[in-house]
Amino acid sequence: MSDQRSEALDYLQQREGAFISEMQEFLKIPSISSLSENKDEMVRAAEWLAEKLNRLGMVNIEIFPTAGHPIVFGQSQPVDKHRPTVLIYGHYDVQPVDPLDLWESGPFEPEIRGEYLYARGATDMKGQAMAALNAIEAIAETEELPINFKFIFEGEEEIGSTNLEEFISTHQSLLACDICLNPDTGMIKADLPTITYGLRGLAYFEIHIYGPDHDLHSGTFGGVVHNPGQVLCELVAGMHDADGRITLPGFYEQVRPLDQDEREELARLMIGEDFYLQESGVPKLWGEGGYTPLERATGRPTLEVNGLLTGFTGEGPKTVLPAKAMAKISCRLVADQKAEDVFIQIQQYLEENVPDTVTYDVKMISSGPSAITDRHTQSMEAMIKAMETVWNVRPVFRREGGTVPAVAYMQAYLGVDTVNIGFSLPGDNLHAPNEKLHLPTWYKGIETIIHYIYNL
Amino acid sequence: MSDQRSEALDYLQQREGAFISEMQEFLKIPSISSLSENKDEMVRAAEWLAEKLNRLGMVNIEIFPTAGHPIVFGQSQPVDKHRPTVLIYGHYDVQPVDPLDLWESGPFEPEIRGEYLYARGATDMKGQAMAALNAIEAIAETEELPINFKFIFEGEEEIGSTNLEEFISTHQSLLACDICLNPDTGMIKADLPTITYGLRGLAYFEIHIYGPDHDLHSGTFGGVVHNPGQVLCELVAGMHDADGRITLPGFYEQVRPLDQDEREELARLMIGEDFYLQESGVPKLWGEGGYTPLERATGRPTLEVNGLLTGFTGEGPKTVLPAKAMAKISCRLVADQKAEDVFIQIQQYLEENVPDTVTYDVKMISSGPSAITDRHTQSMEAMIKAMETVWNVRPVFRREGGTVPAVAYMQAYLGVDTVNIGFSLPGDNLHAPNEKLHLPTWYKGIETIIHYIYNL
Repeated sequence: MSDQRSEALDYLQQREGAFISEMQEFLKIPSISSLSENKDEMVRAAEWLAEKLNRLGMVNIEIFPTAGHPIVFGQSQPVDKHRPTVLIYGHYDVQPVDPLDLWESGPFEPEIRGEYLYARGATDMKGQAMAALNAIEAIAETEELPINFKFIFEGEEEIGSTNLEEFISTHQSLLACDICLNPDTGMIKADLPTITYGLRGLAYFEIHIYGPDHDLHSGTFGGVVHNPGQVLCELVAGMHDADGRITLPGFYEQVRPLDQDEREELARLMIGEDFYLQESGVPKLWGEGGYTPLERATGRPTLEVNGLLTGFTGEGPKTVLPAKAMAKISCRLVADQKAEDVFIQIQQYLEENVPDTVTYDVKMISSGPSAITDRHTQSMEAMIKAMETVWNVRPVFRREGGTVPAVAYMQAYLGVDTVNIGFSLPGDNLHAPNEKLHLPTWYKGIETIIHYIYNL
Repeated sequence: MSDQRSEALDYLQQREGAFISEMQEFLKIPSISSLSENKDEMVRAAEWLAEKLNRLGMVNIEIFPTAGHPIVFGQSQPVDKHRPTVLIYGHYDVQPVDPLDLWESGPFEPEIRGEYLYARGATDMKGQAMAALNAIEAIAETEELPINFKFIFEGEEEIGSTNLEEFISTHQSLLACDICLNPDTGMIKADLPTITYGLRGLAYFEIHIYGPDHDLHSGTFGGVVHNPGQVLCELVAGMHDADGRITLPGFYEQVRPLDQDEREELARLMIGEDFYLQESGVPKLWGEGGYTPLERATGRPTLEVNGLLTGFTGEGPKTVLPAKAMAKISCRLVADQKAEDVFIQIQQYLEENVPDTVTYDVKMISSGPSAITDRHTQSMEAMIKAMETVWNVRPVFRREGGTVPAVAYMQAYLGVDTVNIGFSLPGDNLHAPNEKLHLPTWYKGIETIIHYIYNL
């Protein structure tokens, strides 16, 4: 191991406590991108990151306003221009926190319990973003940086990266790079480093069904007026057939099938029924016939109910026939599916199936493309070697069920592949109450990124 | 017209403003029976009524505690025991007020706009209860009462009269009477006085579907874990068939069919599609095949979604696969159906239809029996005549879709029939935001009760 590399690792060891404290500061900012009332907190989180880049000695730091939340950019003092430039992508926004009463400590009051740090964003992805910044700090504090870095942090990943595409497409020379590193994915388990080469796309819809022009008494109007809650249930129920397949017209026409090679590779990951049963706590799994659970969760498109609301949902009985009903429904998309097409399909489904006893509307409130990256680049090799060094095991390649639109945009506008890694674990309660970060795994993640940088 | 009768009507005319002010006081008490945090307000409303009975010169006034909200009793100084005793039934509890943002004035800040008094409970039924008390005041202030009165006001009508049956069954001699008057029903329209002889029963259920043991990321677990929101939609959708009939096993077996006479009588009410379209604002009606809208709304059983909740229902997208989903579902029952039987039927339906990918529970949180009363008693004749005097038109007889369990209990334990009347109108937003009372109709209602008392 080179002296410089081991000096950087020593620095990490000495500074671990300080790194955790600094991460907690960042986690205290309630940067929930979906809540318009948190707009100021979004700016505060962006400024916190810009200040952090400044402390790291980065230059050309700028907070770019967008139509939504700002984008933070920065880069290292250019070194030898024959050395590669790595663009590090991250997001400083987090998911909403409801249901709040299920949190054991405040979502924005980071608390360490055992080996875990609990907070909204701890794993998705403030903690992961800090891991990358900490790795670079460890190197920068011990020597001149061996390669060039650029940084892009957006504030809208959790709401579909609405303004990222425009920013990347209009700042191609600013962002020009050789490789993109995205530390926003996860590991299969704590002892199995994982590289994600496929990400699903997203098409997120909000459907409203409108019945009577005001809430009615269910005793007086029940049986005469079509209940919007019932209509909504019928529509949502009809979106899957008995075999778990999605019934939106033409939904599967663009879907790129999983080929035999890929199915064999996914099978080698040994992520089977037991894994999903344990992580979810359900009595039995469910899904599209003819595919393994891992195939269904990563390589096949899905349609999920994310929210339903109608009528009275408080304590006790209220005999109301509600005026309206709402569903939030999202599809995960795989290669060759486009969110815009799925929006047309759901509009067609509703046109064909909404009865004329009610009216409705449907909006697409978020979307993102799917992405598949090359598994055989020099950058991938550098990451595989780094992970082998830290974990003493060859990493596995996986597709992931989630969506990182940035990855598709980097490919489209900058012509670069992204290495998707991350150190979040399946039980980290991503997007749920009691989100947590496994600190020993996070520490190994920082080590991994240090090795990756020296391996490039 | 007797001098006494016209003196009472004069008194009413002079005191109208004072009666409205007094009613507003009563309406300011937020006596929402379904909210446990409003328990003190329930007591306050009960005490307000007891005090009002006291001002009317009633005796033996008592506030009886129950396992839930208290029951208020009082009676007049006994007059000639050959004169009949009328038991006046009412309830001082009101429905919840959500969605609060749709109210144009505060639900507990009574406001007169045009001919209407707006407040929660204005029509259901604080205003109606006050109409009966005002009628008696008008008579009592001008002469000795011509008949005997007893009063029973409960605080749990809107939550299924949970403790009323026990109270009536254990206080039969206290409540002994010749007739019961229940002013908690409504009129078909403002110029058509209405006597309700049939009321539907209620069976109100809360269903919970439990999936994963915590909220999951829909990208990571979508397609593998059965979404409880989707399961709930499938279950609710399956509760009706394509012809609008309820599919709970055995649901129609106990249903007493509408006979030809009754169908002809209901047809004479001339309440057709236009009425329901106008009152609800829906583009088209819906319901069980083979029956008119009025038959469906009053003489046939129904099943309605009163509330649905799962996942994220705030602003924007949240990609959650929710841990659980909840539905509030209620059935209106007709003669010979029993809530307990329907509870067994829904349990059986769930047992047969809930997939083994989730768990569930179902509770019956409210229930009440249906009731049909004799249309040819002396008390009915007195009411018909009173209504003819005030409205110059013979009242119509109708069944009503709602539930007043008290009526069935009076029949079972006191052996008396109930005259169900009331002066609420179809557009009064019963159980909905902007509940209102049409003051000119309410005034005629007080006149009607005065005439009824003298006609007995």
